[in-house]
Amino acid sequence: MSIFSEVGPIKYEGPESTNPLAYKVYDKDRVVLGKKLGEWLRLTVAYWHSFSSFGSDMFGGGTWNRPWSGHVTQELAAARADAAFDFFTRLGTPYFAFHDADVIADAATIGEHIDNLKKMEEIFQKKMSQTGVKLLWGTANAFSHPRYAAGAATNPDPEVFAYAAAQVRAAIETTHRLGGENYVLWGGREGYDTLLNTNLKKELEHFGAFLKMVVEHKHKIGFKGTILIEPKPFEPTKHQYDRDTATVFGFLQKNGLEKEVKVNIEVNHATLANLDFEHEVEMAYALGIMGSLDINRGDPRSGWDTDQFPNNSQDLSVAFLPILEHGGLGTGGCNFDAKLRRQSVDVNDLYAAHVAGIDTLARAVLSAEAIIKDKRLADAKAARYAGWEAGLGKDIEAGKYTLDTLADHAIKANLNPAPKSGKQEILESIVSQCQKV
Amino acid sequence: MSIFSEVGPIKYEGPESTNPLAYKVYDKDRVVLGKKLGEWLRLTVAYWHSFSSFGSDMFGGGTWNRPWSGHVTQELAAARADAAFDFFTRLGTPYFAFHDADVIADAATIGEHIDNLKKMEEIFQKKMSQTGVKLLWGTANAFSHPRYAAGAATNPDPEVFAYAAAQVRAAIETTHRLGGENYVLWGGREGYDTLLNTNLKKELEHFGAFLKMVVEHKHKIGFKGTILIEPKPFEPTKHQYDRDTATVFGFLQKNGLEKEVKVNIEVNHATLANLDFEHEVEMAYALGIMGSLDINRGDPRSGWDTDQFPNNSQDLSVAFLPILEHGGLGTGGCNFDAKLRRQSVDVNDLYAAHVAGIDTLARAVLSAEAIIKDKRLADAKAARYAGWEAGLGKDIEAGKYTLDTLADHAIKANLNPAPKSGKQEILESIVSQCQKV
Amino acid sequence: MSIFSEVGPIKYEGPESTNPLAYKVYDKDRVVLGKKLGEWLRLTVAYWHSFSSFGSDMFGGGTWNRPWSGHVTQELAAARADAAFDFFTRLGTPYFAFHDADVIADAATIGEHIDNLKKMEEIFQKKMSQTGVKLLWGTANAFSHPRYAAGAATNPDPEVFAYAAAQVRAAIETTHRLGGENYVLWGGREGYDTLLNTNLKKELEHFGAFLKMVVEHKHKIGFKGTILIEPKPFEPTKHQYDRDTATVFGFLQKNGLEKEVKVNIEVNHATLANLDFEHEVEMAYALGIMGSLDINRGDPRSGWDTDQFPNNSQDLSVAFLPILEHGGLGTGGCNFDAKLRRQSVDVNDLYAAHVAGIDTLARAVLSAEAIIKDKRLADAKAARYAGWEAGLGKDIEAGKYTLDTLADHAIKANLNPAPKSGKQEILESIVSQCQKV
Amino acid sequence: MSIFSEVGPIKYEGPESTNPLAYKVYDKDRVVLGKKLGEWLRLTVAYWHSFSSFGSDMFGGGTWNRPWSGHVTQELAAARADAAFDFFTRLGTPYFAFHDADVIADAATIGEHIDNLKKMEEIFQKKMSQTGVKLLWGTANAFSHPRYAAGAATNPDPEVFAYAAAQVRAAIETTHRLGGENYVLWGGREGYDTLLNTNLKKELEHFGAFLKMVVEHKHKIGFKGTILIEPKPFEPTKHQYDRDTATVFGFLQKNGLEKEVKVNIEVNHATLANLDFEHEVEMAYALGIMGSLDINRGDPRSGWDTDQFPNNSQDLSVAFLPILEHGGLGTGGCNFDAKLRRQSVDVNDLYAAHVAGIDTLARAVLSAEAIIKDKRLADAKAARYAGWEAGLGKDIEAGKYTLDTLADHAIKANLNPAPKSGKQEILESIVSQCQKV
Repeated sequence: MSIFSEVGPIKYEGPESTNPLAYKVYDKDRVVLGKKLGEWLRLTVAYWHSFSSFGSDMFGGGTWNRPWSGHVTQELAAARADAAFDFFTRLGTPYFAFHDADVIADAATIGEHIDNLKKMEEIFQKKMSQTGVKLLWGTANAFSHPRYAAGAATNPDPEVFAYAAAQVRAAIETTHRLGGENYVLWGGREGYDTLLNTNLKKELEHFGAFLKMVVEHKHKIGFKGTILIEPKPFEPTKHQYDRDTATVFGFLQKNGLEKEVKVNIEVNHATLANLDFEHEVEMAYALGIMGSLDINRGDPRSGWDTDQFPNNSQDLSVAFLPILEHGGLGTGGCNFDAKLRRQSVDVNDLYAAHVAGIDTLARAVLSAEAIIKDKRLADAKAARYAGWEAGLGKDIEAGKYTLDTLADHAIKANLNPAPKSGKQEILESIVSQCQKV
Repeated sequence: MSIFSEVGPIKYEGPESTNPLAYKVYDKDRVVLGKKLGEWLRLTVAYWHSFSSFGSDMFGGGTWNRPWSGHVTQELAAARADAAFDFFTRLGTPYFAFHDADVIADAATIGEHIDNLKKMEEIFQKKMSQTGVKLLWGTANAFSHPRYAAGAATNPDPEVFAYAAAQVRAAIETTHRLGGENYVLWGGREGYDTLLNTNLKKELEHFGAFLKMVVEHKHKIGFKGTILIEPKPFEPTKHQYDRDTATVFGFLQKNGLEKEVKVNIEVNHATLANLDFEHEVEMAYALGIMGSLDINRGDPRSGWDTDQFPNNSQDLSVAFLPILEHGGLGTGGCNFDAKLRRQSVDVNDLYAAHVAGIDTLARAVLSAEAIIKDKRLADAKAARYAGWEAGLGKDIEAGKYTLDTLADHAIKANLNPAPKSGKQEILESIVSQCQKV
Repeated sequence: MSIFSEVGPIKYEGPESTNPLAYKVYDKDRVVLGKKLGEWLRLTVAYWHSFSSFGSDMFGGGTWNRPWSGHVTQELAAARADAAFDFFTRLGTPYFAFHDADVIADAATIGEHIDNLKKMEEIFQKKMSQTGVKLLWGTANAFSHPRYAAGAATNPDPEVFAYAAAQVRAAIETTHRLGGENYVLWGGREGYDTLLNTNLKKELEHFGAFLKMVVEHKHKIGFKGTILIEPKPFEPTKHQYDRDTATVFGFLQKNGLEKEVKVNIEVNHATLANLDFEHEVEMAYALGIMGSLDINRGDPRSGWDTDQFPNNSQDLSVAFLPILEHGGLGTGGCNFDAKLRRQSVDVNDLYAAHVAGIDTLARAVLSAEAIIKDKRLADAKAARYAGWEAGLGKDIEAGKYTLDTLADHAIKANLNPAPKSGKQEILESIVSQCQKV
Repeated sequence: MSIFSEVGPIKYEGPESTNPLAYKVYDKDRVVLGKKLGEWLRLTVAYWHSFSSFGSDMFGGGTWNRPWSGHVTQELAAARADAAFDFFTRLGTPYFAFHDADVIADAATIGEHIDNLKKMEEIFQKKMSQTGVKLLWGTANAFSHPRYAAGAATNPDPEVFAYAAAQVRAAIETTHRLGGENYVLWGGREGYDTLLNTNLKKELEHFGAFLKMVVEHKHKIGFKGTILIEPKPFEPTKHQYDRDTATVFGFLQKNGLEKEVKVNIEVNHATLANLDFEHEVEMAYALGIMGSLDINRGDPRSGWDTDQFPNNSQDLSVAFLPILEHGGLGTGGCNFDAKLRRQSVDVNDLYAAHVAGIDTLARAVLSAEAIIKDKRLADAKAARYAGWEAGLGKDIEAGKYTLDTLADHAIKANLNPAPKSGKQEILESIVSQCQKV
């Protein structure tokens, strides 16, 4: 019995239902472009926001009444795990994700931390086997404790680097043993507060060295999952090195890791980087580093990480277009890195928020499917680039021209290409028209 | 015959149509909460963006091929009017709106300007009577000419103030004679570029004096339309005095004009002010100054006025909730202060963009209707404030308490009110569920 | 003995000193335009950031080692007051400011809260009389406790409104008895998280009613200080009603309070509202509601309230121009509503940060003095508006024209005013040249 | 005789001068850390803003009266060159920079364009030899003409790619023959307006192919200058591929060009990317791609490219720290990519703006020199990272640890590193104290 035992299991009731605790769109077995909706989405609940935070913000304390808040003993940690798995199974989502620090009992030393993580690993193993819930990814929280105030791998103090190594080794090994499909590194404080006290070059080198160690260890222990970096431009630090997908890609190349590491893209982090979420997804596919999604939303007017549940399926549908076109998220999934609003103090709010978010995602996938089946968007794009399929364009792509020979050709042919309509408004209207609700 | 003669008239073809030049949602006679859709929306085409601009931006010249670009003679001005009314009637929208400078032939002096405006007024009169197209509002462009580089009513040079008076008198009188339902003042450069050369207090006083003159003149000539101010926080100036609805309200009160002047709210201007469009609408109703809408959208990542056509009906539906609840826009309407993207060089793009925008609005209204009929949102709000309908809340509202007596009551009753769920996620999901496509 | 006893008193050592714990610029008795530097600045330490917070952020716990963190007993509250006054006197600043909640022992009920505040009032009274430190302002924290999650005066629950009334009455009366020169209302959660659950009009009315009660009570008890509202656009809520100075002014007028209430302008809040700090200061003077300053800074790239200590005197010098021109801040002062960076874990950092901030302010005042004495800026401004001192401009200001007569004049005189240089670059260079370091 | 003949030559008059047309700080022969101030700065006037634009903005036409505005004949182009070199020599700056399109007579075809560029090259050659003014860099404007509405190298139409090749070949060869020290590619429209019509992967590949052609051609013709890319995140397009320095670095690596191409960092572009200018400079040095500077400023509140003249030397001084530490800008310089405000209509304003900007840079360099000589900042940084100079840190850097061995060490040693103060406020105060005015 947990505080989440009074609800569920959540069922699919169809579009006419007005029950906030039922799915109206998410029918997990519905087939979309040859694959089940549930398999496209690989829905994941985030332990951190949903079980280990309590509704505090920078101007006030926690408002949600959770029995395991405060100092976490092993007993409370176990009770929280009971509640979490109770919630997962009643919600009907197949995956969860965790940071080490949000699942274990509070620890005073690195040794105790590792012991507590082992204890929780055993509990998780049992619960996962009982419920069938799987682990999308694990990670180490190397940013909350005061020792990480100046970063973990980029800390000026090598002892912090070493401490983080111990913590990450434990976390990745636990993730491996629990069958986790990915291991995530969110560089929560890998960045700086001021350049005045920062050796940027050295910190970037240390960050690269740490990541190489993690990749080497992954192969050593035979972990087959994907290593993921999660881009974010700032907050809590003034500048975080993993700014966005393109920046991470440059960093990976610099360290020879672009085949080894992918990105975990968060909607709200894209917003903070002043990038559309769909841009980050397209860019990740273009660069070959698409990994997984933290599927939340930011407030378009607020300048900090609000981590709200998604609610606008049209916005998301354009990000799901490339996902459907590329056959899905691979080892990745849709992780609800989203937190209740501070005022959402009812136990039911946590269910309702996830249900609403999941239905939003289902709508986005169905709308993307409709756009793909409609074909007008893909046809317009193909027509726009048709010049590269033959003649001049094909020859340029094939490397048959130098600047010299191409310039000569332009002059000789007296080229004078006229602008062609980009049809943006028409294409936007097709997206609108294909929305499913 | 104009360049717009090959298309239309645009018809309603229903949701399954894939014709970009047909309405899929906008059935103007469809009854929504007792009023026709067309009457809720009062659709308006903006002369400025659609007929007097050519696709230039700060980094490049015009791309749209319009026969009347360049120096505008009376002949070209007339040809442009032919094309504009051709477009209005083929699109099937009932209103247009204009700035003086974008309809008349180029003028060298204030006298010539007034003469040219008279000539165009005659042409408009004839065309309006022939087509039935009506004038939502007129305005004077008192910001583009170099003389207005430092503002019009707030210019440090009183001669510019006087020049603007002459221009505005002509524009409001023409608007009056054409049966315009509103007269708009957009303070394009009423603001400053730097405080170092600005007497802010004096400029605000001059601005107030000018507005009082306009209101006095309106009554003198018997114009029954609404005077509107259009808030915008910045661009082209660094700071514009008409920042947002609440700021305008303060300015109106300061000048005793809060019963005389209302606001013309633009979506993109709200975005630039870092305010949700629905906030501006709610605020205008709360303050009693709701006037009309410039219905476009900005890019949420760009920091300038992109004036795009609306395409996300869910975002707009929440702004239409108060509009439907208040019985509509009164003398206002939905003016497409939106411009084609620079690459949208086809003549058809202008039709398709308006059609898409209109269907987006229609979807927004239908979705707002669904939310209202669903009742859950209104019920939740009523329940949340129920404490003010009786007892303590009612007595406070009735002024029965002072700080002293209320404080005494709180202490005596040992009040300890617990937070109640704001149910934000549940309410957001109701909005999503009620969307119509 | 407190943790702050090892430093100070901080002395003025002059510009060549490299001692981080000495003033290089702030010579409090130096005369600037006829008044002492210390009297222009009226420096104030904020109890909240400097003694009642501990270096936590949204991603990690406290890093500063303060003996009174955690649950605050009466004993710890007293120890904290000892440390605070130790710090004030060693730093040599004449004022402090406080929220009720950050000075008192933790309380479970409203009655206990009031008792604890009375106890602290006695302690403060004694310490103030011993040290000569004065109270710039007091306030009530009506936003941190979960009961205020949905606001205080704008809470949907009238019992919260009543609770806040009791808390504010106690705070303003304590402030009065301590000789506070102002009483501040920061509407920390007077706003909304979503319009979907908000009756905006009703909340604004309740907010106005509350403010009227406070003003009425102020007069009743004979408090001669100034009531201040502190504008902020958002954070923690999505939208705060006290957005900026102009918005607050509109609200005050609406409630007939524009002669009763002034603004406490915070630099970082101006930044969040996308307004220059100097704009807010100029606007407050123009509207007659200049009250006091929360003198910190935001990071220009971050979208949240970073509350950093000021460090750029050139930026501040232009805001001090109108302050010097208007004869100073009246009952207001410069309150360091600024917090140490989370990594600044040394006790000395708190001293050094204040010293640096104070020297920055001193530089800003000396630079503003230099600009005023230089006269070029004022002369340029006077010349720019000279047209309003006689002839047409004077007659317009005197109300001698209507729109009609002014338009007739413009046409008859065939006015064609040419743009005149705004000289922005030249004026900016004068500001740069007048900087003092 | 040109419109710029009445002023100058501008002289150094020292800090007490109040002449807006004299240098107060910029004494070009003053020795700073062993090199002359003029050699550190390598000052450059931008032809584009200062001679080929006229004060227009998106809401109004040109306000500056320049005799060569409008359709540019060969005669006007020559007159403009006369005026430009008149200005350069009277201002006393050693370099200029140009886009092909802003110097040549208007051309209708690619052939005519190349002819006109040759004519201007001859004129420039003569003027450069007469005056000693040198060319910092040349570039091709491949973004203003309608043909480039959808980009140049990333245009969907291969004919545009070819046209751009012809234009760039001509521009780089002219730059080479004029002894230009760099060649810049600003990807003005290399990006997209909407992903809906964009094949992002293909466009990135084309962009890479084009850049490789340019580099290959540079070597072929023996050009020894540096090829530079100029990062900008958006505007005019919604998204530009050359977002910021780190993104450009990733792109260069992907195309094997990281040893061949560097960055031209613009202050205002950094601001638009929500990055501090000093961050971009530090990052470019850290990645080995520091090239040159476009030294302007943006308004911190505006979301578009305002290209203002620099006026805050403190902000710039921290960016000059790494420049001085690395021995200077190499082939790069400080290019005033800055435009007068639209109201600055006097001819003298152009002189005064450059003078003010140059003095601001001089102040920044002198302040950076003072910070370096002061040593406290460098010492604090060295102390902070001292742990990497020996023992554990040195061994980690030397690759002596794996994740396994390092984790074992942490556990065995029971590491528990405490946070150390980052001293941010103290370091900021040192920067403030070292400012020179």
